[in-house]
Amino acid sequence: MALDLPQGVLSEANLAYFEKCREKLGFVPNVLAAYAHDDAKLSAFAGFYNELMLAPSGLSKLEREMIAVAVSSVNRCYYCLSAHGAAVRQLSGDAVLGEMLVMNYRAAELSMRHRAMLEFAVKLTEEPHRIEEADREALRQAGFSERDIWDVAAVAAFYNMSNRMASAVDMRPNAEYHRQGR
Amino acid sequence: MALDLPQGVLSEANLAYFEKCREKLGFVPNVLAAYAHDDAKLSAFAGFYNELMLAPSGLSKLEREMIAVAVSSVNRCYYCLSAHGAAVRQLSGDAVLGEMLVMNYRAAELSMRHRAMLEFAVKLTEEPHRIEEADREALRQAGFSERDIWDVAAVAAFYNMSNRMASAVDMRPNAEYHRQGR
Amino acid sequence: MALDLPQGVLSEANLAYFEKCREKLGFVPNVLAAYAHDDAKLSAFAGFYNELMLAPSGLSKLEREMIAVAVSSVNRCYYCLSAHGAAVRQLSGDAVLGEMLVMNYRAAELSMRHRAMLEFAVKLTEEPHRIEEADREALRQAGFSERDIWDVAAVAAFYNMSNRMASAVDMRPNAEYHRQGR
Amino acid sequence: MALDLPQGVLSEANLAYFEKCREKLGFVPNVLAAYAHDDAKLSAFAGFYNELMLAPSGLSKLEREMIAVAVSSVNRCYYCLSAHGAAVRQLSGDAVLGEMLVMNYRAAELSMRHRAMLEFAVKLTEEPHRIEEADREALRQAGFSERDIWDVAAVAAFYNMSNRMASAVDMRPNAEYHRQGR
Amino acid sequence: MALDLPQGVLSEANLAYFEKCREKLGFVPNVLAAYAHDDAKLSAFAGFYNELMLAPSGLSKLEREMIAVAVSSVNRCYYCLSAHGAAVRQLSGDAVLGEMLVMNYRAAELSMRHRAMLEFAVKLTEEPHRIEEADREALRQAGFSERDIWDVAAVAAFYNMSNRMASAVDMRPNAEYHRQGR
Amino acid sequence: MALDLPQGVLSEANLAYFEKCREKLGFVPNVLAAYAHDDAKLSAFAGFYNELMLAPSGLSKLEREMIAVAVSSVNRCYYCLSAHGAAVRQLSGDAVLGEMLVMNYRAAELSMRHRAMLEFAVKLTEEPHRIEEADREALRQAGFSERDIWDVAAVAAFYNMSNRMASAVDMRPNAEYHRQGR
Repeated sequence: MALDLPQGVLSEANLAYFEKCREKLGFVPNVLAAYAHDDAKLSAFAGFYNELMLAPSGLSKLEREMIAVAVSSVNRCYYCLSAHGAAVRQLSGDAVLGEMLVMNYRAAELSMRHRAMLEFAVKLTEEPHRIEEADREALRQAGFSERDIWDVAAVAAFYNMSNRMASAVDMRPNAEYHRQGR
Repeated sequence: MALDLPQGVLSEANLAYFEKCREKLGFVPNVLAAYAHDDAKLSAFAGFYNELMLAPSGLSKLEREMIAVAVSSVNRCYYCLSAHGAAVRQLSGDAVLGEMLVMNYRAAELSMRHRAMLEFAVKLTEEPHRIEEADREALRQAGFSERDIWDVAAVAAFYNMSNRMASAVDMRPNAEYHRQGR
Repeated sequence: MALDLPQGVLSEANLAYFEKCREKLGFVPNVLAAYAHDDAKLSAFAGFYNELMLAPSGLSKLEREMIAVAVSSVNRCYYCLSAHGAAVRQLSGDAVLGEMLVMNYRAAELSMRHRAMLEFAVKLTEEPHRIEEADREALRQAGFSERDIWDVAAVAAFYNMSNRMASAVDMRPNAEYHRQGR
Repeated sequence: MALDLPQGVLSEANLAYFEKCREKLGFVPNVLAAYAHDDAKLSAFAGFYNELMLAPSGLSKLEREMIAVAVSSVNRCYYCLSAHGAAVRQLSGDAVLGEMLVMNYRAAELSMRHRAMLEFAVKLTEEPHRIEEADREALRQAGFSERDIWDVAAVAAFYNMSNRMASAVDMRPNAEYHRQGR
Repeated sequence: MALDLPQGVLSEANLAYFEKCREKLGFVPNVLAAYAHDDAKLSAFAGFYNELMLAPSGLSKLEREMIAVAVSSVNRCYYCLSAHGAAVRQLSGDAVLGEMLVMNYRAAELSMRHRAMLEFAVKLTEEPHRIEEADREALRQAGFSERDIWDVAAVAAFYNMSNRMASAVDMRPNAEYHRQGR
Repeated sequence: MALDLPQGVLSEANLAYFEKCREKLGFVPNVLAAYAHDDAKLSAFAGFYNELMLAPSGLSKLEREMIAVAVSSVNRCYYCLSAHGAAVRQLSGDAVLGEMLVMNYRAAELSMRHRAMLEFAVKLTEEPHRIEEADREALRQAGFSERDIWDVAAVAAFYNMSNRMASAVDMRPNAEYHRQGR
């Protein structure tokens, strides 16, 4: 990371969280390490992230990761494409799907549901001021509930934040991501 | 809000938070009401927001609101321009400054510090993939510390999320904002 | 105004025009003051402007001001957004409408007529080379006559000039505009 | 012209003006014919145009036509590129210059003065909200006076109006333009 | 040409090719002269070009030149607009058509076939990543065979190369082009 | 491939070429298979490609592949990113470099030479009409000869063609590419 921010003193809870990352993933994701210069901010970010990506939702975890990659592709975010491209490869068991979403999601043969989901996410990324009722209606037509629409929007919006944070401070993805799910 | 999401059962903590909003602001901001369909998501969002905008920082609260407005202007977000335009008017005591940031921040006569801060925030919004070391260096030259740069980036990134969330679900600003700080 | 252009000698007619502005508005709009370095150019501009914005038309004065604001929002013109935003607030008696048009006209709940009118004006502003018969036909479908279409186009085109003139010479709006119609 | 607007009753002055066009040019330019559905609007437009393009200025008539073409090239306006491309060919006696300005002014080997002039005009056309003091200063460095800068801006701004008017109503250039100055 | 690349030793075949150009056209097109710094590259380029533009195809030679001009207009390539604009004027016997395609193909009254052909070529130029099955289907609906679609794509793609090559090395069109077909 | 174009009768030379592909690569690249509907076009394309990418040049083969990937990333071409991303991974022995060029070349720590090379290639791709002498001069400053500049331009221009051809006909990369050089 290009910013010179030494790790702060971490709370018990965050030390345990990092330990759990090491056990489950084999490493602490660099995005978390980046937030660790401030324990309170790390807690707030991790809490928000986990609620979004891991809590129960009408969207599967894979679907949330697909949105993350499609959004990060528009924003050309090296960190997020590496980390979430790996997640799509792993959750789908389809390495090529992960690459297609990194390169151009339009190249993938997607279900109507997934196509509608990614079109909404990409339009929200590229031209948020042009999102209108017709865009929400297209998601309803593809079978998404009101709550699902919220979740599609929330994941797409989150990566518009996260992509910019990673680019702003030049976060570098953990080396492990590049090999996962190949 | 265009999405039909009834308010969920709120925890004691969030009920108290809403009560505090009513006391201090006279109303519950509609963005919080929008998240209230899910108590856990409301907590995560409010925690993240308060840490970002209200916790101690090398950036003043006015500076953080200025970034919020400049970013929301690029994204043409009606909700955030209304709410945070009001905040700039109130915190600065300068109604015209608030309007200039809504319309085109380049019209404002800003200090070198504020100019550099908004240029970074706007570039990060418009073309995050082009942010490079030279952009961070420009902030350092304008007197920002490493931690300050993180905070500039974090606020700008957050409103890129928040703008999109508001546009995606068609959040409408509380009527009170329009008159504040005129 | 950033350009250093002293006021020229004004004709009787233009002196009277300025006097009339002071009586009716309480001030001479700075755009007129800016043209006053050259009496003939002031006359030509004022003649053209008055014919466009005040002469009888199938478009109401409010509608013409709505177009002015929507176009100026695309071009992010501080002067015109201030002056014509005030006009929309005053003519409509709806301060929030004025702000929505400044921020993002898509946020406003507009009649079909007004929606079609602003969509044409904004497309003409953003990508004039893509205007085709289908765009004119959409106005006809919304009830606009041939002459009305001319007037929609003429007002939108005029503010594409005026916005650029204001930005080019850094015109500053009269302070009075900011409070009008709140 | 795609709009079905019959010519109105013209005043003596405008009839004489059209007669003068026929004598000097051999035809009435279609842009004037288009405005002739309304005598007052024709007078206002012609007055404004003549003041801008023909009145004394620190910019030569050729320079004003060069700006007209460079701006019309950005906006891809068929009418204005035909009419003012012809004017550049005739006034300069350099048919290739006319074509280069239609196609891409950067291909022309221009004096520093003309390069600075067209760069300002094109930036004002493409991104008026980014024009700042540095842009005006570049014109001063190239030898333009305050009044000259006004005139560069005024011509560039005018064709941003005129291009859009022509595209909006589908004005077709007189056939004569295509052969002039070849 | 801005690059300082002396002509290489040409093979018999290429010397004969240049001689044939002089006989048929009166000159060697500067694009060929530019490639002549390397005999093998000249052969490869000329072979590829001739196969594309002159070999039998469901597209007429005029149609292929129309695509060349429409694509070169998007890319604002002075060399290609000069050379292929001349070709359209000559092959069509319609000088105005050539100019319209240089300026804005949407201004031309085209057959459904030609309109569909140029819309595909321009979209492929402007946003190749958004081309999808629906775009190919639009060509089929306009009567193009599978092989014809390949040829439309191949010509449009080729000028996206050729435009960039000409701009990169600042190729200047032969003076003869400007007068051809007027 | 979305176009339904059966393979044509291939010449001895092209049959041998395909056989050589199978021996060296283990497969015939689908781009060659796509051109095989027409033997003469296959020969012309393959001749042009081999001259460009494999013939002696001041640019190494890896450098030519790096340009191919950076250009294809701008154009979001799934086929070319897959095939040439694999080539960068293999030629460099650096899988992460290949991914960074696919995602955002600015994330890679490049030598001054490679940075200048890719900046030229990407600008030529994004805005060819803005390439000027200063851009060529930047390459000279980075040590590129006149002939090298031609080659940088030629490779970048070629992939602007090839990306569009692949997108136009929906070429799908051979499955082998995805695993190469991981």
